[in-house]
Amino acid sequence: MDDKNISQAVVARLPRYYRYLGDLKDSGIERISSQDLSKLMQVTASQIRQDFNNFGGFGQQGYGYNVEYLYNEIAKILGLNEKHNLVIIGAGNLGQALANYVNFERRGFIVKGIFDKNPDMQGRELRGIAVQSVKNLERFVRENDIDIAVLTIPKDGALKMAETLVKCNIKAIWNFAHVDLNVPDSIVVENVHLSDSLMKLSYGIVNKKLNNSKDTE
Amino acid sequence: MDDKNISQAVVARLPRYYRYLGDLKDSGIERISSQDLSKLMQVTASQIRQDFNNFGGFGQQGYGYNVEYLYNEIAKILGLNEKHNLVIIGAGNLGQALANYVNFERRGFIVKGIFDKNPDMQGRELRGIAVQSVKNLERFVRENDIDIAVLTIPKDGALKMAETLVKCNIKAIWNFAHVDLNVPDSIVVENVHLSDSLMKLSYGIVNKKLNNSKDTE
Repeated sequence: MDDKNISQAVVARLPRYYRYLGDLKDSGIERISSQDLSKLMQVTASQIRQDFNNFGGFGQQGYGYNVEYLYNEIAKILGLNEKHNLVIIGAGNLGQALANYVNFERRGFIVKGIFDKNPDMQGRELRGIAVQSVKNLERFVRENDIDIAVLTIPKDGALKMAETLVKCNIKAIWNFAHVDLNVPDSIVVENVHLSDSLMKLSYGIVNKKLNNSKDTE
Repeated sequence: MDDKNISQAVVARLPRYYRYLGDLKDSGIERISSQDLSKLMQVTASQIRQDFNNFGGFGQQGYGYNVEYLYNEIAKILGLNEKHNLVIIGAGNLGQALANYVNFERRGFIVKGIFDKNPDMQGRELRGIAVQSVKNLERFVRENDIDIAVLTIPKDGALKMAETLVKCNIKAIWNFAHVDLNVPDSIVVENVHLSDSLMKLSYGIVNKKLNNSKDTE
């Protein structure tokens, strides 16, 4: 189906490259060797070369990488050269935090609408956008060329909301609800399960403690 | 050093098992076969068996898994049977969202203090906890048996804050700042880079579009 299917592991590393290259660019650095990039990012130089080879290289022997070129190329691969309209569903603290995160907008993710089922929230403004009733959601998504729905509602409502979003042909769901969504493969889902992350942290603490007590035995 | 070192991939899957088992338990289900768990979670039964074998099994031939037992065992492995005191650094929207997330407390993660460098925020209460000046942070961490620092400040201040946290012997940092922290290996760091996640979503959208247009060629 796709002859240049890139492994999920490589894709997962791209945003980090993009972040570091952005910082280099902002510091006025024009080129960098894979060795220096390797040191900076604490990954092996061969990993970096392999990763970039998935997209045809970018490097030149003896010159290294042109920072701005590489930055822009990775942006294209990540689709950051296109604008994506999004809606936020759930205007609680997390929804508000995401709505107020201006960096997203700088990267082409435009908050077009914010929805909440709580009538007390409706009409309040977040960054100049009035919170609407979720009743308006389907029509809004269809009429405003919305690509992405950001789901920041409790898990009980999330499954049903995902069904609604499937019906109005959403392309992607950024899911913060504490549940796995069951949607067709044609829809991109990226989960941010904060509790899962906190549990991994907790595992790390307990495990380090075990190791440390073994070390001193 | 540690003879039962478990791969990061397995550890990363444990919170998801824990989540599903919690839902089963809440639904009153007492046991489940690896086949049924496999169907529910959409991972292979052999993957489930292999994962659990890292911790000595838990299953019984012909009986399946005892849901509550397995739930409790995974909780222990993840360190959720212990209480962890935490501080939130940065009382902006995201810090507030995390402070208000009661489920963390139910799982033993107790918010003890909230800090912000902005004087306007100081003294405000979040869930009954007054926001303090970051000047108090070091002493507070030392005196209140704090395991975890939740970092929800912009990246510029995050590196310096991480140094401070290292000095006061924090065990773990849950890092939401858009930068990789440089701390000793003895400190557990779990990153939640929201922009990275959004970029993966964007990559997915672009890539699906390419695939779909190829399909219809």
